[in-house]
Amino acid sequence: MTLAPPTGTTSLASAEEARAVLPALVGSLPPGTVLTDPDLLESYRFDWSRDPGAGTPVAVVRPADAAEVQAAVRWAAEHRVAVVPRGAGSGLSGGSSAVDGGIVLSLERMRAVEVDVDCQVAVVEPGALNAEVKAAVAQHGLWYPPDPSSFEICSIGGNVATNAGGLCCVKYGVTTDYVLGLDVVLADGRLVTLGGKRIKDVAGLSLLKLFVGSEGTLGVVTRALLRLVPAQQACSTLVASFPTVDAAARAVVGIRRGLRPSMLELMDQASVNAVEDHRAMGLDRDAGALLVAQSDAPGTSRAAEVVAMEEACRAAGALEVFVTDDPAEGSLFVEARRAAFPAIGARGALMLEDVGVAVPRLPELLAAIARIAAEEGVEIPVVAHAGDGNTHPIIVFDEADPDSRARAAAAFEAVMAAAIALDGTITGEHGVGRTKKGALPDQLGDDVMSLNLAVKAALDPAGILNPGALW
Amino acid sequence: MTLAPPTGTTSLASAEEARAVLPALVGSLPPGTVLTDPDLLESYRFDWSRDPGAGTPVAVVRPADAAEVQAAVRWAAEHRVAVVPRGAGSGLSGGSSAVDGGIVLSLERMRAVEVDVDCQVAVVEPGALNAEVKAAVAQHGLWYPPDPSSFEICSIGGNVATNAGGLCCVKYGVTTDYVLGLDVVLADGRLVTLGGKRIKDVAGLSLLKLFVGSEGTLGVVTRALLRLVPAQQACSTLVASFPTVDAAARAVVGIRRGLRPSMLELMDQASVNAVEDHRAMGLDRDAGALLVAQSDAPGTSRAAEVVAMEEACRAAGALEVFVTDDPAEGSLFVEARRAAFPAIGARGALMLEDVGVAVPRLPELLAAIARIAAEEGVEIPVVAHAGDGNTHPIIVFDEADPDSRARAAAAFEAVMAAAIALDGTITGEHGVGRTKKGALPDQLGDDVMSLNLAVKAALDPAGILNPGALW
Repeated sequence: MTLAPPTGTTSLASAEEARAVLPALVGSLPPGTVLTDPDLLESYRFDWSRDPGAGTPVAVVRPADAAEVQAAVRWAAEHRVAVVPRGAGSGLSGGSSAVDGGIVLSLERMRAVEVDVDCQVAVVEPGALNAEVKAAVAQHGLWYPPDPSSFEICSIGGNVATNAGGLCCVKYGVTTDYVLGLDVVLADGRLVTLGGKRIKDVAGLSLLKLFVGSEGTLGVVTRALLRLVPAQQACSTLVASFPTVDAAARAVVGIRRGLRPSMLELMDQASVNAVEDHRAMGLDRDAGALLVAQSDAPGTSRAAEVVAMEEACRAAGALEVFVTDDPAEGSLFVEARRAAFPAIGARGALMLEDVGVAVPRLPELLAAIARIAAEEGVEIPVVAHAGDGNTHPIIVFDEADPDSRARAAAAFEAVMAAAIALDGTITGEHGVGRTKKGALPDQLGDDVMSLNLAVKAALDPAGILNPGALW
Repeated sequence: MTLAPPTGTTSLASAEEARAVLPALVGSLPPGTVLTDPDLLESYRFDWSRDPGAGTPVAVVRPADAAEVQAAVRWAAEHRVAVVPRGAGSGLSGGSSAVDGGIVLSLERMRAVEVDVDCQVAVVEPGALNAEVKAAVAQHGLWYPPDPSSFEICSIGGNVATNAGGLCCVKYGVTTDYVLGLDVVLADGRLVTLGGKRIKDVAGLSLLKLFVGSEGTLGVVTRALLRLVPAQQACSTLVASFPTVDAAARAVVGIRRGLRPSMLELMDQASVNAVEDHRAMGLDRDAGALLVAQSDAPGTSRAAEVVAMEEACRAAGALEVFVTDDPAEGSLFVEARRAAFPAIGARGALMLEDVGVAVPRLPELLAAIARIAAEEGVEIPVVAHAGDGNTHPIIVFDEADPDSRARAAAAFEAVMAAAIALDGTITGEHGVGRTKKGALPDQLGDDVMSLNLAVKAALDPAGILNPGALW
């Protein structure tokens, strides 16, 4: 096998070179599509990770359709200008941090959603928000399951780019499980259609699946065909408190052994207290951890599944178990879980992790995180899609204090190293982006890294697409 | 983008050249691993498609572990010998047809199955049969859903290579949805591990998904980690007869609009009669088509789902609807459906199609198939995973009659063209292999073909892996 050299920004246009050829881009697109106002450029530099390495783009391009995306990419290919695709900017790994001398290709204006009811498919432009898709299909009694915590503000394009997960994934799978087709603008500006409305299709290599999760490094998605399912049944909600995180994690292992909850989330004591500080919801501040679980099993089997989950919680040493069939009451607990990230954000600057392990190793991972917090002297509240073994340790630090920042950065790397040591992953659903790429070779090893680079080199030999992300 | 040249066999070793270097291979592997007996070579030339283009291998290599696979591939890479990976040989598209001068790399001896109950993962060698995996995990109350009709005789390696489907896929998804990890020997003999027992992992490109469905053209799978779920609930079975195939297809569209059957199969009149001829089961020979559907919804919701399916059948004009909650009775109908392929095989030689369309276009596809049968004067019974829009038109011909063979071949191409014209696929679950590759460019178009070839060239630049398959 040819080992492809790492692609990078070294041979790409400088800011000066890119600015010099900008008139050709402006001239090829409708007025108002290419923006260069400095204040506006500043507002497109960062995603939610506030990646300190973010550069400053020479322009923000906001195409209205696939043809305009093609025009922008063709121009970039001709002049070797870096292209950073961007959806709603809610990414958590710096996957859409701007690059010095590059353009930001914002898909925010492309947000049409059409529903093909008979096919049970939504035809979606990449800028449409996840919540907009859910709302549009719900009108037809249909459901698009993937539900990142940020579903109200994140775009489908970003969801596809990161293969986003969420809370219901423990039963219903992640984004890639719902992508039937993609239109993609390639690195040379060609537009290809992969897949289609047929549910099963194995003709040729699984390129459709390759583009899902590629974080903008292989192409720019201009349209997605998303598989829909009948509307979700009503849910019952169980909230259980445990003396320790370890006991809660053991309950998760027990529940997953024979049940299919539609949600199985964990909050540790620090995250429970952060939520309570932010907005009192009556959660048990003294518990070592809470589990929030749901069952959407139909009919009478729902009650049976909840009883079985309760038994698994008690067997693992639950302090209290509360169950409700009232959807509104259940939603309050789910909102508490979703509120953890902003609530913890009120305590300081954050570095957000996304590490995962096989479910039975959750107790070990959570113990390692607690040890790292103590060793580095940082606060690391944890919320987790526990049923999938995917955790979000959230490192809180003081941005104004270099020592605090250094300890947080050390903890950030240590948590990823701990996950790798447990045969886990540095990212379960947020993507590698720029903030986690240092740890990617440690997880994948040299041979798999070389495979990644070989595919990248085959599809984007000049390295213009999202340079600096992933590797 | 660099358009990779098509890879092929032109620069690969001839049979004479390969035979000359065979002693080095024999010497590097335990005695009995490399077989060259001519009768035995003959028995490894074909899969179930009886591809007339199959060549004769210089050797059959039957490794006992991944290290022996690596030794064989390293030798092949050094001497540019074609390698055709082979599981159980039950493929239906010539994906494991032998190549003149190549070796057949049979994984039949690598069939260990380990079950990690806490992780709900089966660790499986590629030669293990699908049925062996199902049986091993059932002992622990777990279930591996993908269920090709051939599940009793097909291997997991072949299932991964083709991204195999089956009957329960309409609710539970296909092979790729269950593959958490793969060990793969690359074209240069390196062994890489992709994925792992963690359920969610988005670190790096989705190479795991790329290898699933790659039909042995990118690497040789030596181990698969398969996701398991709790054992399936009991099923109720519905059998409905319709005056026409069109009415049955419209019932399928109606059922899928709001329900989640765990099976939704169609048999047309010709396939029903073939099964009855083969082994009388009391099916209605006069009906234009039968649907066989199942619900495994839990508890009382199962009866409700069956009632709703029955209503959809009656709304589409069903003649008779029969429902049973008795698993043994239900199994008889499922067996009748599974028996269609061998039963039709008793009528002559077969060319088996695997075309699919979006579900609402099923009536159009079935009409097109009937038209082609009439135009070409051939018999084409149809069975279908109707709930997924995936059909198996089975072209019956007389192998001894050149005219019959020519008409069958014309029908074979016409059916694929009809599916493409309906925005469908030439293969939903069997793979392209060698027998369908002529139609692949018609479906994918030049740009997507070039993407396929670029990825192939990046991962197997010498083209030694399964040359002649896919393109």
